[in-house]
Amino acid sequence: MKKVSIPKGTRDYSPAAMARRKYIFDTIGDIFNVFGYQPIETPAMENLDTLLGKYGEEGDKLLFKILNSGNFLNGIENADIQSTDAGAMSSKISEKGLRYDLTVPFARYVVQHRNEITFPFKRYQIQPVWRADRPQKGRYREFYQCDADIIGSRSLLNELELIEIIDRVFDRFSIKTCIKINNRKILAGIAEILGESSKLTVITTALDKLDKIGSEGVTGELRDKGISDPVIEKLQPIINLSGTTEEKLNNLTTILKDSETGLKGVAEMESLFEYLKIPEIKSRVELDLTLARGLNYYTGAIIEVQSDEVKIGSVCGGGRYDDLTGIFGLENVSGVGVSFGADRIYDVLDQLDLYPEEVSTGTRLLFINFGEKEEKYILENISPFRDAGIPTEIYPDHAKIKKQMSYANQKDIPFVALVGEEEINKSVISFKDMASGEQIKCSIDEAIKLIQSRYV
Amino acid sequence: MKKVSIPKGTRDYSPAAMARRKYIFDTIGDIFNVFGYQPIETPAMENLDTLLGKYGEEGDKLLFKILNSGNFLNGIENADIQSTDAGAMSSKISEKGLRYDLTVPFARYVVQHRNEITFPFKRYQIQPVWRADRPQKGRYREFYQCDADIIGSRSLLNELELIEIIDRVFDRFSIKTCIKINNRKILAGIAEILGESSKLTVITTALDKLDKIGSEGVTGELRDKGISDPVIEKLQPIINLSGTTEEKLNNLTTILKDSETGLKGVAEMESLFEYLKIPEIKSRVELDLTLARGLNYYTGAIIEVQSDEVKIGSVCGGGRYDDLTGIFGLENVSGVGVSFGADRIYDVLDQLDLYPEEVSTGTRLLFINFGEKEEKYILENISPFRDAGIPTEIYPDHAKIKKQMSYANQKDIPFVALVGEEEINKSVISFKDMASGEQIKCSIDEAIKLIQSRYV
Repeated sequence: MKKVSIPKGTRDYSPAAMARRKYIFDTIGDIFNVFGYQPIETPAMENLDTLLGKYGEEGDKLLFKILNSGNFLNGIENADIQSTDAGAMSSKISEKGLRYDLTVPFARYVVQHRNEITFPFKRYQIQPVWRADRPQKGRYREFYQCDADIIGSRSLLNELELIEIIDRVFDRFSIKTCIKINNRKILAGIAEILGESSKLTVITTALDKLDKIGSEGVTGELRDKGISDPVIEKLQPIINLSGTTEEKLNNLTTILKDSETGLKGVAEMESLFEYLKIPEIKSRVELDLTLARGLNYYTGAIIEVQSDEVKIGSVCGGGRYDDLTGIFGLENVSGVGVSFGADRIYDVLDQLDLYPEEVSTGTRLLFINFGEKEEKYILENISPFRDAGIPTEIYPDHAKIKKQMSYANQKDIPFVALVGEEEINKSVISFKDMASGEQIKCSIDEAIKLIQSRYV
Repeated sequence: MKKVSIPKGTRDYSPAAMARRKYIFDTIGDIFNVFGYQPIETPAMENLDTLLGKYGEEGDKLLFKILNSGNFLNGIENADIQSTDAGAMSSKISEKGLRYDLTVPFARYVVQHRNEITFPFKRYQIQPVWRADRPQKGRYREFYQCDADIIGSRSLLNELELIEIIDRVFDRFSIKTCIKINNRKILAGIAEILGESSKLTVITTALDKLDKIGSEGVTGELRDKGISDPVIEKLQPIINLSGTTEEKLNNLTTILKDSETGLKGVAEMESLFEYLKIPEIKSRVELDLTLARGLNYYTGAIIEVQSDEVKIGSVCGGGRYDDLTGIFGLENVSGVGVSFGADRIYDVLDQLDLYPEEVSTGTRLLFINFGEKEEKYILENISPFRDAGIPTEIYPDHAKIKKQMSYANQKDIPFVALVGEEEINKSVISFKDMASGEQIKCSIDEAIKLIQSRYV
């Protein structure tokens, strides 16, 4: 037989995986919904000029590009081809790409539909994205993101609300998490007072390793990356910042006293942590100055969530961006959003065995099919089970009973009905509760009630 | 401002459209589910060798192909390029394509996972497909299909079940439909007794126009297409076939007496129409010999569904295929399936104004935000509304009340809460039912019950 396969980094989802994914998406979607976020969807393909230049040089390379349809070589000059410059060539034969995330398509959506939208606009979006990354364990070329964003309001209430959403989602999943928060303005302020604004990335990358390599290690790395000793000296109070969030913020006010941006960031964090005292939040929420995240468009709060029990990287992240729609020419529309990583949440739930039992949506009742006469009786009586929402099958062939029972077993069908002459004459059905082994003979109505009470 | 757009033939879905689409997908999915079909999903991208050659030459041209990532020009010879043969070139720079339908990926899935699957395998799949068709009204380059198939059983019970599913779906939508059924073996039998097996398509295309141009017109068209007069003569009893389904099938038994295949088709239809007498079917079900459908892989029953009230082409179609997994080397696995056209169903529901009112999932309650003190009280009391499943917002900014009320109006939010000093002191809330204009002041618990009773 020919070997069939799917592109590397992509996956098929079996019925069992689908049931678990539905549980994840429904849980997250329901919570977005009770906070007033509404769903949108955008096309898998976007014009390349929407996507290019939004994710950095590396991101551009990871875009999946669609070959123009028809004779895509039309109008291609020999010179274009002979340059063998893949970048230049691809722009001539491809004008569409698959979306790389949900944030840029959302920004495009807001700009394109700005006259139909009521601002502040709260939307959520649960769709796959595609990246031509090298596939490896836990990293896929097609994966789902679950994003909620609010755009058109600068209020920190929105940051609070997103943290409440995160807290509810992981509480519903029974996943214990730590929600880490930082502020891009504080990071910018630190770089500013160090006189090293251009080296912000080097500094934050080193700070990010504090947990693993300690303050000595961080100092060493900074020196290796060409940060001078006086600057490293100045960084010490930041590296050694400790105490409660309040104490940290107080110290930062002193450290950043000469940076207007930095102080603004501290003030924002003070307000946000003040807000966070009001509702009940079950997760730990921590100020973490080492948190930077890759995406360059954050301008205020930066949020990242980690599982306490499973080391798998962040399960959710986000932040505020003041300039997102600016890339499409719509200025001064501030937004803030979070993105849940469905694949990692899937793995965490799996590892901690946290899926609720009722996640399966498989068949509940199978009618064994003995022959024509029984089949007719079953067909006359099967509809009420389905009307009552019980997934019900009749085995389609007059196969041997052993084969039919084995079908029920392999599919984990909890109730199997056997209908023969006696049942037909008495207008009843007989069925077996496969878990307990109990045999029951009763009317159709009673059978429906019984199955519903035991399982649905 | 820069003009932003999406690729032609693709669409953004607004929250309002999403709510309607969810209604369609949930309705169809729920019905698939109660019949024991379980969901799977496959990747958007398939290897091109999975897709190519499965949809005819025209289909191959309509595939969206993905440019290989990295330097896709590596290994391309100058000769390849200079041939300027787009087909040959594309196979060298592209090895993946977007799925064109859900049937071929399903066949690939079954072959690839045959050792994990319990047969007969009943699966459904609701996902987008992509075709590089010329976009026009009602024809898109990205659109959703909703497919249910059962594979691994030759029983006509499966055809019956799919017709029951179709009937339930459109009954749930309150769309009146006619379900037309034909059988590929009958068509093959007709061509066989005419001695014109190679002209099956010409004959069925002409027959397809019987409704519009009458039997004279059909005769004329057949003559134009080079069908000889004696053959046209022989076709007359088929063109003029009339009466009940039973009478038609009886006449066909006589007409097709010399074609083994044809008689087999008649026998299948007799059994199926016999089965169709058992359950209650609300749609009209008709034998329609003019029904052929484009796809060549059908080998038995052919099914097509039309709305009685909206002329929009078929809203659902399908049939039996004995050879589908044969293209991937797994022989003798017969399947039968149907595919619902979500976009056309959307349009029919729209035109007939059949969407139920409760389809909207938007915000039910908005708290007006007067200032810090009120905000704090609201934040302390808002969670129970969300816990009760009521989509609830607090306006994030301390904006003018007129602006906040206009936000509520534009979003059609049915309840608006106004909380001031008095409410805070008495631990109550005041809210307005926007539909009736009624003002209510009560406790949080009472407010939740009231809003639930009036709206959720």
